[in-house]
Amino acid sequence: MINVILLGGGNLAYHLTNEFLNNAAINLVQVYNRSLASISYLKGKTAITNDIKQLKEADIYMLCVSDNAISELSIQLIFKNKLVVHTSGAMGLNTLKSTSNKGVFYPLQSFSKEKEVNFSNIPIGIEANRTKDEDLLMQLAKAISKQCYLINSEQRKHLHVAAVFVNNFVNHMYVLGNEICDAHQIPFEILTPLIQETALKLSSLSPFEAQTGPAKRNDSQTIETHLSLICENQQKIYKLLTQSIKNTYGKKL
Amino acid sequence: MINVILLGGGNLAYHLTNEFLNNAAINLVQVYNRSLASISYLKGKTAITNDIKQLKEADIYMLCVSDNAISELSIQLIFKNKLVVHTSGAMGLNTLKSTSNKGVFYPLQSFSKEKEVNFSNIPIGIEANRTKDEDLLMQLAKAISKQCYLINSEQRKHLHVAAVFVNNFVNHMYVLGNEICDAHQIPFEILTPLIQETALKLSSLSPFEAQTGPAKRNDSQTIETHLSLICENQQKIYKLLTQSIKNTYGKKL
Ligand SMILES: NC(=O)c1ccc[n+]([C@@H]2O[C@H](COP(=O)([O-])OP(=O)(O)OC[C@H]3O[C@@H](n4cnc5c(N)ncnc54)[C@H](OP(=O)(O)O)[C@@H]3O)[C@@H](O)[C@H]2O)c1
Ligand SMILES: NC(=O)c1ccc[n+]([C@@H]2O[C@H](COP(=O)([O-])OP(=O)(O)OC[C@H]3O[C@@H](n4cnc5c(N)ncnc54)[C@H](OP(=O)(O)O)[C@@H]3O)[C@@H](O)[C@H]2O)c1
Repeated sequence: MINVILLGGGNLAYHLTNEFLNNAAINLVQVYNRSLASISYLKGKTAITNDIKQLKEADIYMLCVSDNAISELSIQLIFKNKLVVHTSGAMGLNTLKSTSNKGVFYPLQSFSKEKEVNFSNIPIGIEANRTKDEDLLMQLAKAISKQCYLINSEQRKHLHVAAVFVNNFVNHMYVLGNEICDAHQIPFEILTPLIQETALKLSSLSPFEAQTGPAKRNDSQTIETHLSLICENQQKIYKLLTQSIKNTYGKKL
Repeated sequence: MINVILLGGGNLAYHLTNEFLNNAAINLVQVYNRSLASISYLKGKTAITNDIKQLKEADIYMLCVSDNAISELSIQLIFKNKLVVHTSGAMGLNTLKSTSNKGVFYPLQSFSKEKEVNFSNIPIGIEANRTKDEDLLMQLAKAISKQCYLINSEQRKHLHVAAVFVNNFVNHMYVLGNEICDAHQIPFEILTPLIQETALKLSSLSPFEAQTGPAKRNDSQTIETHLSLICENQQKIYKLLTQSIKNTYGKKL
């Protein structure tokens, strides 16, 4: 049984506390938040406090607070020989200013209180200074998820950039596709099955193998036709991505 | 009961013939292909031929041949008062050179013989010169799919460009994400749940509403950090898409 105290009452804290309470391998000893209101849903389920001096004993102290609050909150954790971890993808291990051992427990998904989550399908990246702590965090991660990885701070920075490409920029491609549809009275839902197929394909093919389209085929006639149909901003993006696809396959095929 | 003759023996023909054979509302009268080998799987299930002069009577003659074969094959269909349709997203209605009435029956998905499909979830765009033919094609489309749309040739051209953004360019974002992961020994599967979540989100939010990330938040510190971590080609794309996201939200919020 792993004893955990969680600090925070936001989006991630909400889902992690629910998961920990329902997980037989984990004992959620206490939850701290600066305001009690955000953690009142835990009354009767575990101990709650808004006084950092009242923190109990546990194996892991997990900070689920805003990135820029990690340093100022962790500096108040003055005990030793405990494991203090944060949950941020964007912050290094040393953002933690506690005197204890340090680690990171980063669930790679976007959370909001309204949306239910299933942790077993959420990848978790962990990091710690000491092998012993790494093992403990891995044990915790495996208790809730099927996909657990050792990811150090350096790798996590790069993972964060990769996530911008496959999530934020991908969504912007959807926005541009939607713009084109709207401009020609085409219902955007007509593209939803293709969009989902494109994402699901990755379970059987690498993205490199899955690539199709005029840029991959080097079909310059279709490319010219397409460019003549779109606005200036779309053209710039179309040209740059077409060139990048050509380079990718020119180089490697 | 709608009587259909299908011409072609490739990827799309394979799936459509199977669907038509199993659909009570449709009678697959005959299948033509220039080579019998590709349609031998239909022996005993429907009439097959490689002689265009032996075509029987039907309500709809559906061409499932390569885009650049549509004109040369349809010109040989010299009968009148029949409906001849092609199945291409990239070709106008008038690519058909038959003397009959013309239409388009375009299933918006990518097909390969190996991959099973479920037509009920594949959007179908239809077009015809005459309302009567439009109605007949809509009846056929509705017999196999839940998502049927009237899409004229002009709209179909734009739809094709939109599909390049949401399918080909999205896949290239996956390729770039994968490149970043490989360069830092991060397993790409760690991003698969996020990728699928990004696509599935569109069933409850518009892409405009679903946008997140440093560009949307105008978080210039994170943007600078990210740019310092990636190679030149990735930087160019990161900058252009970040600017495009900023413009999108600067304009409309
Ligand atoms: N949400 C996600 O999608 C996601 C995914 C992976 C990782 N994470 C990481 O999880 C952590 C929490 O994110 P979140 O989305 O849950 O944030 P959130 O919903 O904005 O909640 C922020 C929490 O931090 C507390 N807080 C803010 N400033 C504080 C301060 N100066 N001192 C003490 N507490 C403070 C807030 O307290 P009040 O309730 O009193 O305002 C609130 O409980 C972050 O490190 C984030 O990077 C989030
Ligand atoms: N596959 C898709 O993802 C997809 C999706 C939507 C729409 N479509 C449209 O469906 C149509 C067929 O595509 P496909 O992917 O099924 O193609 P495919 O697998 O490449 O098959 C092409 C078919 O066309 C025949 N053909 C080629 N040139 C011909 C000619 N000069 N005369 C007569 N027949 C000829 C071939 O005959 P042989 O068997 O003798 O070689 C073969 O049966 C195209 O218009 C395409 O745009 C395809």
